[in-house]
Amino acid sequence: MADDLPLILVSNRGPVQFGLDDAGERTQQRGGGGLVTALSGLVRLLGEGVWIAAALTDEDVEVSREHGDKAFTITDQLDREYLIRMLEIEPDVQHKFYSIIANPLLWFIQHYLWDLSNVPDITGHERDAFEHGYVPVNEQFADVVAQEVEARGGRAVVMLHDYHFYLVPERVRERCPDVFLHHFVHVPWPQPDAWRTLPGWMRDPLIRGLLGNDVVAFHTERYARNFLLTCQELLDLRVDFGELTVRVGDRTVATRWYPISIDAEAFEALADSPEVRAVEKQLEQQRREFLILRVDRTDLSKNVLRGFKAFDTMLEDHPELAERVTFLALLVPSRQDVDEYIEYMDKVRRLAADVNLKHGTTDWQPIDLRFDDDFTQSMAAYKLFDALVVNPIFDGMNLVAKEGSLVNRRDGVLVLSEHAGVYEELGAFAISVHPFDIQDQADALYRALTMDPEERHARRNACARVVRENDLGKWLRMQLEDIERIRG
Amino acid sequence: MADDLPLILVSNRGPVQFGLDDAGERTQQRGGGGLVTALSGLVRLLGEGVWIAAALTDEDVEVSREHGDKAFTITDQLDREYLIRMLEIEPDVQHKFYSIIANPLLWFIQHYLWDLSNVPDITGHERDAFEHGYVPVNEQFADVVAQEVEARGGRAVVMLHDYHFYLVPERVRERCPDVFLHHFVHVPWPQPDAWRTLPGWMRDPLIRGLLGNDVVAFHTERYARNFLLTCQELLDLRVDFGELTVRVGDRTVATRWYPISIDAEAFEALADSPEVRAVEKQLEQQRREFLILRVDRTDLSKNVLRGFKAFDTMLEDHPELAERVTFLALLVPSRQDVDEYIEYMDKVRRLAADVNLKHGTTDWQPIDLRFDDDFTQSMAAYKLFDALVVNPIFDGMNLVAKEGSLVNRRDGVLVLSEHAGVYEELGAFAISVHPFDIQDQADALYRALTMDPEERHARRNACARVVRENDLGKWLRMQLEDIERIRG
Repeated sequence: MADDLPLILVSNRGPVQFGLDDAGERTQQRGGGGLVTALSGLVRLLGEGVWIAAALTDEDVEVSREHGDKAFTITDQLDREYLIRMLEIEPDVQHKFYSIIANPLLWFIQHYLWDLSNVPDITGHERDAFEHGYVPVNEQFADVVAQEVEARGGRAVVMLHDYHFYLVPERVRERCPDVFLHHFVHVPWPQPDAWRTLPGWMRDPLIRGLLGNDVVAFHTERYARNFLLTCQELLDLRVDFGELTVRVGDRTVATRWYPISIDAEAFEALADSPEVRAVEKQLEQQRREFLILRVDRTDLSKNVLRGFKAFDTMLEDHPELAERVTFLALLVPSRQDVDEYIEYMDKVRRLAADVNLKHGTTDWQPIDLRFDDDFTQSMAAYKLFDALVVNPIFDGMNLVAKEGSLVNRRDGVLVLSEHAGVYEELGAFAISVHPFDIQDQADALYRALTMDPEERHARRNACARVVRENDLGKWLRMQLEDIERIRG
Repeated sequence: MADDLPLILVSNRGPVQFGLDDAGERTQQRGGGGLVTALSGLVRLLGEGVWIAAALTDEDVEVSREHGDKAFTITDQLDREYLIRMLEIEPDVQHKFYSIIANPLLWFIQHYLWDLSNVPDITGHERDAFEHGYVPVNEQFADVVAQEVEARGGRAVVMLHDYHFYLVPERVRERCPDVFLHHFVHVPWPQPDAWRTLPGWMRDPLIRGLLGNDVVAFHTERYARNFLLTCQELLDLRVDFGELTVRVGDRTVATRWYPISIDAEAFEALADSPEVRAVEKQLEQQRREFLILRVDRTDLSKNVLRGFKAFDTMLEDHPELAERVTFLALLVPSRQDVDEYIEYMDKVRRLAADVNLKHGTTDWQPIDLRFDDDFTQSMAAYKLFDALVVNPIFDGMNLVAKEGSLVNRRDGVLVLSEHAGVYEELGAFAISVHPFDIQDQADALYRALTMDPEERHARRNACARVVRENDLGKWLRMQLEDIERIRG
């Protein structure tokens, strides 16, 4: 950091993941998920700092133990050397923390996904998962963060990430009053009534925990305002919607918003790689006149079902498109240890089958549904779409919209939900859709496929320009500048 | 009204309902539902005014036609004479208006009941129901209101009721600029994100329609604030949270809150009637040591399932209560033309059966589930409960809590959800429960049944006192006083 304060990064997934190859040799891979990629730009600022994450594989645990469960130096795939520390969490505790409380409980609340007349039930089971899962994992992380801060003389900038760690900041602040705590929440922050789904004994500590920070950051202004509303309404705290601050005792906590992005340059280079071009060629050979694309984790917030229903409606409304269009759905299976996700994938599969049975012919399968985690394939498909469907119910940001708009080669049109965080940046150049309005989405698909080439071109260019301008470097820079300003 | 302005009342259900008896003779009954009872107190103020409602039975339609579809004078069961006007609505239009848009679409949004990853889908079907159901019914009511206002020289106080008529005020104001429009919303007003479930083409006219009023009234301050938030966030209007007003063009719309109640005196007299005492005797003979009671429509917002789960948990935690307690659930079937309600009643039935199978014995059925609409029975049960369960997910007010607290004879304890509108008045004297926390509700039931008699007595007395003080007369008086003040 600027005046040589060490940086301490905290995220559930770390920058590397250890494993074993077929010969039993240890392997080191890049950590999965978009967040790790985004945070990777902070590595050059780590200096004497450390990146703290959970040990998620057996081999992560092994490596961590070899280093006495302390921090150790790694060399990453970009040949950068820095310290990481991996926390071993008991499997049972990890299950309670991750698969009961963080997902689905908190995730569902923050995306308005609970079917409230039926679920959730907060029973002894959930209470146990909170008290013996979420709380101890947060305590474990907080204590390690505090140790690392103390080892650096008690002063550091700590950047925490996401809904896994809401209790960490308050506990770190108690032990290390001089630390600067910055917490980025990558999911939407819903309005206070959504938090009423949780009883006070769980809800209040979560919000109070987060208020241990100096800055609580979100992707959009709306989430920042919702956070202030939550503090005002549920904890009766004094907030300032002009300054975007909340008063907690004698401290002032700032909320801020920074739309996350991608590394545009690296992404464009990757899109041009031989691997991607090879897959692109295959897809190009399979394609019909029009290609509609979606790329998503199989998350309930992504609204896959209504996307297929809209496609169904479009085919009904426009029989002339029969055999001329494919809806390629590249879905990465997600959280298959959570019942709701298993059921959802099942519904997606059944609906795709129904639509194909209804409209398909001997030679034409309208929806090409692929469940796998193949980034090269996604990248290749990004280059080829005529319409990219990003229709989430609610979504913190949604990077697919940015990725696809950037590398597409056919002036493909972005069909974008009003409720995605990215809408604030790209909405003006996309065709807006309302995520619950099937007819609206069907009309939007048709409009995208039949749009005049000049307009398509202008829109696509505008999207790509915004993505290049607001790229990942800017996202990090703005946060760091604000940290300097707020500390000063 | 005070300075002799005529009053025009508008509600979906009217004060009387016509039918035919076995001999084919016309009958006239009191209109059903708690709202009609509440509004009945306004009849003495009607003067030259009129009460406008929908013609809901075949005989209502017949009577209305006999009067050339104009207003006509009735004599009600209290021997009061006044004008009513009943609107005949095409059955197909009525279905679209009532059973697709008003219920479930708006009702579910206002109670946070949609399971968003699955429902609702806004398709051509819903668009048609809005455009050819909700809109024309609202236009029909608005035009009749305007006619009645014009027939009175263009000046009147119009009091509209509930979510059926959000489009009426704006249209009346256009035709009758000098009218005073007051609209009471009896359901919760949710936070703005809940309204995002509706596409703008439906959402914006609904809110703008409501802003045609001079006063928009709710049961609690929280709903009034949520309404202002909605205007601010979704329509970008200037609001004042101190004054509780919103600026619309050159007009100021006030929001207010008045907790509705019951006619305490009449209710206590009724509880003492021979009919009630006869049923009370029967129930008294059947009762075990402890009686837990709930009285509700079978609405998804009422949280019947979690109430039974809590009872199940209590029986598990306290086996000593076996055979000593009955949970009497008096449920009035509701909206059985809406799929979600049919499914819900089914779930309720199955769950009660499961709990009974699990805990019951030859001589003891733990849950006594009765589906019928028998007010005398409810009244008798009110007098006998030891614990009254009112645990809704969200509820505009909930009069069961007030009714039961008022007439109970055993110092029964109110177990009350934090999320019911009535919580603001009775929460301090009830045992509070969180509607999603099953263990909390189980503990609350146990606490209610085992509470020290003095504490029970003090709590019940306090509840009854509040109900007597804030009774229906006060509810009406406060609204009328505010109308005078705002007009002046």
